[in-house]
Amino acid sequence: MSKKSLGPKTLALPAPVWVVGTYDAAGKANGMTAAWGGVCCSKPPCVSVALRPSRYSYDAIVQRRAFTVCVPSEKHLQAADYFGLASGRDEDKFAAADLTPVRSELVDAPYVEEFPLALECRLLHTVEVGLHTLFIGEILDVKCDEQTLTDNGEHPDLAKVRPVLYAPGSRRYFGVGELLGTAYTAGRDLVRKKP
Amino acid sequence: MSKKSLGPKTLALPAPVWVVGTYDAAGKANGMTAAWGGVCCSKPPCVSVALRPSRYSYDAIVQRRAFTVCVPSEKHLQAADYFGLASGRDEDKFAAADLTPVRSELVDAPYVEEFPLALECRLLHTVEVGLHTLFIGEILDVKCDEQTLTDNGEHPDLAKVRPVLYAPGSRRYFGVGELLGTAYTAGRDLVRKKP
Repeated sequence: MSKKSLGPKTLALPAPVWVVGTYDAAGKANGMTAAWGGVCCSKPPCVSVALRPSRYSYDAIVQRRAFTVCVPSEKHLQAADYFGLASGRDEDKFAAADLTPVRSELVDAPYVEEFPLALECRLLHTVEVGLHTLFIGEILDVKCDEQTLTDNGEHPDLAKVRPVLYAPGSRRYFGVGELLGTAYTAGRDLVRKKP
Repeated sequence: MSKKSLGPKTLALPAPVWVVGTYDAAGKANGMTAAWGGVCCSKPPCVSVALRPSRYSYDAIVQRRAFTVCVPSEKHLQAADYFGLASGRDEDKFAAADLTPVRSELVDAPYVEEFPLALECRLLHTVEVGLHTLFIGEILDVKCDEQTLTDNGEHPDLAKVRPVLYAPGSRRYFGVGELLGTAYTAGRDLVRKKP
């Protein structure tokens, strides 16, 4: 296979589409779309999101030392994109998107009631990487709509949550497809038997 | 909607399925499956992956100050899962999976020839988060199979790369679904017109 060099770009696939929930200095709920982020530790459970200091949500995270990671479903695509286009400096994004901010009882930040999944995080580390600052949040709880849980009620079901995928570069959104297999099982046949 | 509290867990959806490529002390190519990671800066372009110090790849990244992020396609699911089950301490995972390590010309790490997409990274920051250490790599180049590029040849096409999604908690793998829309466009109708 012939590979083309695309240069030093952030073309890691897939990227998530998350809305970071915060309260501003006046106590107004705000949300910001983030595709730069990911889980970064199992114990304590942590998730990271990267923001530019110019973002309105930046000061909110620094001041409240808290944020939520809210996972929109594909039916929330318009709102999820809008949360990345507008600024909480200028408008009430929750009102414009007709969404409901719910005050977390654990951290000083709101999550989106209508989105199926939310992680409530307290700020644990701040890493200045470059244009973006990485905020590492300790996940204090995860809230998931009952209807989007797996049949045993224990976990979010990816096929029911239906999060949105983002493709950097082409700037396109995609949905979730077919179940492909089970982790720690699909590759077992390749584990070499010890003699 | 009624939300269930699932506790402090790493249930951020979706997680990527990446194979981190490294050379060990003896120069043997190794790969390790990572679902904890994400882009973390646009300038310089950076991607992060989280590893436990017990992982064989951990010392390799520290010593060579380099790694690759290789994106398997869904047809590589068995190999992608296997790279998370076995350890390079015990076996040659590239050989077992019948995959080819290609030496990067930019960093001291190999990428997987058969996978459609690879990011070549030099270690920029190391963040001790907890059980996992976050390695932040500056992306020096991105290599993409010609056949998986968008029609204009400029970007990886998510629908052609067909990366695997991981659902933490339920531990299931999913494929990529339908094109849903275009970023910075889908939400435009919600941007409030200024008077």
